[in-house]
Amino acid sequence: MKNSKTTVKRIAARGHYDKETIYAVLDAACICHLAFVYEGYPVVIPTIYGREDDYIYFHGSSASRMLKTVDDDISISLSVAMVDGIVLARSGFHSSLNYRSVVAFGVAEKVVDTSEKENALKQITEHIIKDRWEEIRPINEKELQITDVFKLKLDEVSAKIRTGEPKDELADYKLNIWSGVIPMKTTYMEPESDSHSKDLPVSKAALRLTERKNK
Amino acid sequence: MKNSKTTVKRIAARGHYDKETIYAVLDAACICHLAFVYEGYPVVIPTIYGREDDYIYFHGSSASRMLKTVDDDISISLSVAMVDGIVLARSGFHSSLNYRSVVAFGVAEKVVDTSEKENALKQITEHIIKDRWEEIRPINEKELQITDVFKLKLDEVSAKIRTGEPKDELADYKLNIWSGVIPMKTTYMEPESDSHSKDLPVSKAALRLTERKNK
Repeated sequence: MKNSKTTVKRIAARGHYDKETIYAVLDAACICHLAFVYEGYPVVIPTIYGREDDYIYFHGSSASRMLKTVDDDISISLSVAMVDGIVLARSGFHSSLNYRSVVAFGVAEKVVDTSEKENALKQITEHIIKDRWEEIRPINEKELQITDVFKLKLDEVSAKIRTGEPKDELADYKLNIWSGVIPMKTTYMEPESDSHSKDLPVSKAALRLTERKNK
Repeated sequence: MKNSKTTVKRIAARGHYDKETIYAVLDAACICHLAFVYEGYPVVIPTIYGREDDYIYFHGSSASRMLKTVDDDISISLSVAMVDGIVLARSGFHSSLNYRSVVAFGVAEKVVDTSEKENALKQITEHIIKDRWEEIRPINEKELQITDVFKLKLDEVSAKIRTGEPKDELADYKLNIWSGVIPMKTTYMEPESDSHSKDLPVSKAALRLTERKNK
């Protein structure tokens, strides 16, 4: 998956090109950002997505009304980024973040086959919360029809990961400046029942998610 | 700031166009995503940024080697998105996320004036962690010279915010399906001293950040 566009040049040691590393980052994040060119201008929008094997799925309607106007395949760039900590170096120049990120390039194809579309929507739901698909009311014809789904094959893709403490200029280590890391994490809180669910047992998928994410 | 590109069409009630709302979202997030067109293709990358008044600042070198090749002003789209919760509806179609997001469009200008550049880098550092700028070793000539800084005026910009419980199809409320929200938040943990700072008092800026963010 390493080529001219995806090769991480700036700090090569942070670049990763193996599926295991890349897919772990894609699976851990909640949303991605998609960029595409619309009437000559770059457009970036946040959206949810799912991954199955070497494909990313997303739906056009939630993504953007602009993407909704696209009837053909469309060139996109996709990014996923999670911040794991603030890196406080002795200089601004070396101050940084700890993070896990993936950037992919490619042509997103509109999914037309109905069962492929349904499976894609399942992957998107399951990406956000595993096993929820079985709990909800099945998708109906009308919903399937009005939802545009795209898929992107993960060919041109790479990950960048930074971990650990600051790397300062040698001379700066003598300075009396505290340096280190403020670790950050995403916390999933107790599921809150909506006004119609007060008497129902909380979704097993929701309970499992909060348990899994917070351990 | 409302025009054809920024008008939030899909669910109009979620759109916001006032500075107060938009800037609060921009100030709360840690990273943004930038999109630009490079050799005809869309490119999206995550990067840090700062805001002062009606301008967003970011630096090209951290952003991307591709942006580094840009010597002129460049058309960009910028997005900031924070996920506040998973919204579990009774159908996949209405399942969603609670979130705060901002999308901006415009032409990013290269900052050439040295003192403007230094101030921009201060804003970027201060955006990540307030009052850190005073604690660190001042920026030097060489660092200023090799860092490309861009600014984007916040003209064409809008926010989208979703809060609250799921909105289901009326007929679906009768179903015996638990629905609700799993709230999410970013937790900032105790600052960890690096190997050269073990005997120094922890940065006041770091302590204030974790206190402020976690309350």
